[in-house]
Amino acid sequence: MTQWLKDLGGDTFAHSYRLDEILFDDHSPYQHVQVACNELFGTMLILDDAVQTTTADEFIYHEMLAHVPLVAHPKPRSLLIIGGGDGGLLEEGLKHPLDRAVMVEIDRMVVDVTLRYLPGIPGKAFEDPRADLRIEDGFAYVRNVPAKFDVVLVDSTDPKGPSVPLFGEAFYGDLAQALSDDGILAVQSGSPWYQRDLIAQVRAGLRKHFPIVRTYVGLVPTYPGVYWSFSIGSKRHDPATVADAAIAARTASFDLRYYDAAQHRAAFSGPAFLRPVLDT
Amino acid sequence: MTQWLKDLGGDTFAHSYRLDEILFDDHSPYQHVQVACNELFGTMLILDDAVQTTTADEFIYHEMLAHVPLVAHPKPRSLLIIGGGDGGLLEEGLKHPLDRAVMVEIDRMVVDVTLRYLPGIPGKAFEDPRADLRIEDGFAYVRNVPAKFDVVLVDSTDPKGPSVPLFGEAFYGDLAQALSDDGILAVQSGSPWYQRDLIAQVRAGLRKHFPIVRTYVGLVPTYPGVYWSFSIGSKRHDPATVADAAIAARTASFDLRYYDAAQHRAAFSGPAFLRPVLDT
Repeated sequence: MTQWLKDLGGDTFAHSYRLDEILFDDHSPYQHVQVACNELFGTMLILDDAVQTTTADEFIYHEMLAHVPLVAHPKPRSLLIIGGGDGGLLEEGLKHPLDRAVMVEIDRMVVDVTLRYLPGIPGKAFEDPRADLRIEDGFAYVRNVPAKFDVVLVDSTDPKGPSVPLFGEAFYGDLAQALSDDGILAVQSGSPWYQRDLIAQVRAGLRKHFPIVRTYVGLVPTYPGVYWSFSIGSKRHDPATVADAAIAARTASFDLRYYDAAQHRAAFSGPAFLRPVLDT
Repeated sequence: MTQWLKDLGGDTFAHSYRLDEILFDDHSPYQHVQVACNELFGTMLILDDAVQTTTADEFIYHEMLAHVPLVAHPKPRSLLIIGGGDGGLLEEGLKHPLDRAVMVEIDRMVVDVTLRYLPGIPGKAFEDPRADLRIEDGFAYVRNVPAKFDVVLVDSTDPKGPSVPLFGEAFYGDLAQALSDDGILAVQSGSPWYQRDLIAQVRAGLRKHFPIVRTYVGLVPTYPGVYWSFSIGSKRHDPATVADAAIAARTASFDLRYYDAAQHRAAFSGPAFLRPVLDT
């Protein structure tokens, strides 16, 4: 019998995928981890029945969450990633001339299955001498962080289970402490279709700790609703006003498939119907 | 029991909707016509199990198919719409200072159910004195068209059943005959994810009859894959090079929710990964 995965967006809408082969299926201490194949989207990483990333479209989410804040900072030397177990974000971050990139992922199984079944997503990122992978609780790590970072990226699952604290105002306060004086925080903040309350909650939390708060959109085909929001808290640099020429110069050698100056601009202006959601 | 609609994109991927109420369900001579309610997308028009339009996102498709070619023409006075039974395209077209807009829809049932269950989509378009609704076969109408049009829009369903001839090269030849000397044709040309062959076929057909051929994208949440292509055949005016100021001036009074100069530009440049598909 053909098996389909129904990846719900809210209660009443879903993306459905025919699963042609299940390559991996197990439970970690934190979540249900699956890897499966779909004809259109390739190999898919699925956590608790939600598609996290696929070989066909992973670059969109990872490029948009990494490069928007990294180009907004004039000279980032250090990067902290919370979550992001598939390594796609680490790979994008390391394209910048950083001195170091720390990645704190709570679930070793996610890193392991990625390296085994979706190795193209991290590429050689985990072997990069600048990379420091830590399998531990990101929330606790940030509380006792030993050094300041220029940019922090929070690549979490939906606000369920282990990800709940990652959307809390207290966490944003700890992250503000972990950032340098002109540091920038970027987080995935959910769907502008069915998680509008979440976007409002994230923005309100960021506003308590950062003078500049911006929400932008990227279009991720495998996330239900496709329009996806990311939110930034910044101490000094406004990501909405980075010059096109700076973006082009900073990313010229990166071989990107989605992000460029035009997408940066479109991400912050958005179509008119989304502006009330993004400016909550 | 809760009923779900599975709207397939290709064979292996679908958008799924919980149908909270079926307001209408019947077969016309041409297709299975349903109107249903979904919590996230509102009232939906469904033809042969494919969501055609919804009250929540109809404006995106209609604004993008209508205004891109209409602003590309310096002074359109006459508009022909083939298909488009829900009237959303007619409503957008009539925002321009036209003398007349002819709409040729083969299936009266689509017009009737729209007026009854989704009246907000056409608004007052069908009552506009410039509008001329004809319930007949668009393919035959164009063959014997009595007058020339400045802009023609083809708003068809997928290339199945009655819509097959609307994607054929012969039809584009007839439409070129029905257009004025600097006329513009725009058609919906399918998904850049799972209908790449269709986009290539449409572009090859247009190239036989028009010196300028362009494909652009809009993001329609209820179409599987969301990235959606539209293709233009133009006799003289290049839609990719319309000035931002002209777009702003021409549409300033339209009260649009998606289309503007930034979206016009983004639609033709697209993210890098789509460019090979759009330039087939």
